[in-house]
Amino acid sequence: MLKVPDHQVAGHKAGKGKLGPLVDDSGCFYKPYQCDDRGSKEDLVSNRNNPSIMDIKIGARTWYPQASDDYIERCFQKDRETTTSLLGFRISGLQIYENKESGFWKPVKKLVQAFNVEDVQLVLRKFVSSNSPTDSNSVPDCSFAPSVYGGSSGILAQLLELKEWFEDQTIYNLNSCSVLMVYEKESLLKGTSPGAEIKLVDFAHVIEGTGIIDHNFLGGLCSLIKIISEILTGPDEHTNKACLQDMEKNSVIDNGTNK
Amino acid sequence: MLKVPDHQVAGHKAGKGKLGPLVDDSGCFYKPYQCDDRGSKEDLVSNRNNPSIMDIKIGARTWYPQASDDYIERCFQKDRETTTSLLGFRISGLQIYENKESGFWKPVKKLVQAFNVEDVQLVLRKFVSSNSPTDSNSVPDCSFAPSVYGGSSGILAQLLELKEWFEDQTIYNLNSCSVLMVYEKESLLKGTSPGAEIKLVDFAHVIEGTGIIDHNFLGGLCSLIKIISEILTGPDEHTNKACLQDMEKNSVIDNGTNK
Repeated sequence: MLKVPDHQVAGHKAGKGKLGPLVDDSGCFYKPYQCDDRGSKEDLVSNRNNPSIMDIKIGARTWYPQASDDYIERCFQKDRETTTSLLGFRISGLQIYENKESGFWKPVKKLVQAFNVEDVQLVLRKFVSSNSPTDSNSVPDCSFAPSVYGGSSGILAQLLELKEWFEDQTIYNLNSCSVLMVYEKESLLKGTSPGAEIKLVDFAHVIEGTGIIDHNFLGGLCSLIKIISEILTGPDEHTNKACLQDMEKNSVIDNGTNK
Repeated sequence: MLKVPDHQVAGHKAGKGKLGPLVDDSGCFYKPYQCDDRGSKEDLVSNRNNPSIMDIKIGARTWYPQASDDYIERCFQKDRETTTSLLGFRISGLQIYENKESGFWKPVKKLVQAFNVEDVQLVLRKFVSSNSPTDSNSVPDCSFAPSVYGGSSGILAQLLELKEWFEDQTIYNLNSCSVLMVYEKESLLKGTSPGAEIKLVDFAHVIEGTGIIDHNFLGGLCSLIKIISEILTGPDEHTNKACLQDMEKNSVIDNGTNK
């Protein structure tokens, strides 16, 4: 018997024809949809009009402790090769709607897998920019950031709600699970709501928590939240520089022998 | 030239004879003390009267990305063998003051390294209990928890302040760094402040962050915070059971074909 988890905070709940994560009698999650390249994603957003989508695999590790040593080793190597270890998450797929003529920018899997930290930071900006994502000469203007990432019901607010849940829940440990970010550019340009939304997807390796929070998911989520926050408030170079200058100004000189 | 980092929130700042983390011109942290078994710890708490001390190595990984493959592999195996991977932290040393006659309970390194998740949860309770930590027949009463972990200046409050800093700062990535928890049982029994305090120690592998938060430290810190919070509010079995019962009560039955 599958049931709707009561504590689900992100995305629509299951039931009444809607999709969402489900939980069985033993407390195991079931994946209602698997996001891969075999078309089942397009299902998830079937009611959407030319949606821009980003699939972000959360966590600094994608392996789960019960797996075989071989599996763990393979995941561990991939986590180090991608941004997973460094950033606490990696982009595993995306499509950004440009316009009627150009359609979508949907980079091939190989390119997405090769993203480094700077690429990920850039793509998260491109995702909410009006200028072409494929034009390497123009800096992403992030003009949609306030409507998509910002606001009381925007993606950042939803991520913060999810974070609050993960700080407390010790029932589930999600391994190799993704946050899907969706919005509609055309609605936004028409002046209506872009329908910015996050969904938790890919529950292939959900295990029961034993009084421990999912610190792996939470840490990666906080890393994503920080980057999106900085897109909303300004470039992080500026923030860090100001922070460092502030530190220099207020610091006390100590020659290190003062022990 | 070593300076006091302006953004240090935990423990006393360096300067005027006090110890604390220091930062040099290039932004690198320097370790003012290294906590190991060679006696330099006893330095750190020299002004303390029979202190109970716990050294908690924070993070679900202790290796740093710039290290050699060999070093990473060794750390990775140790992280899996200890509670580091599962819990997001491990206890790397402790001493609990019992009384004048018994002195301290200071388990040998081998025993501490073999702690599993349940051991860690238990030891965090023993740390703030009035009954003997070596008596395996009595359940730790956690009677000092409100005075040591709780309160506006207690250890939990200090950890939450540290968490807030780690949610925002992108200047330092701390690898294999510890939080030291200290308090004095005798002061507490005398009715004076137990001097509960946390300190960040072991900055051997601090690297510069590049616009990324330290999600590894943050995730582990949140895991520790959750366990300490539950010691203050009640056993986690209870919380989880209530949570699950609540979930059962409010769940919508779905046979899984409703797609």
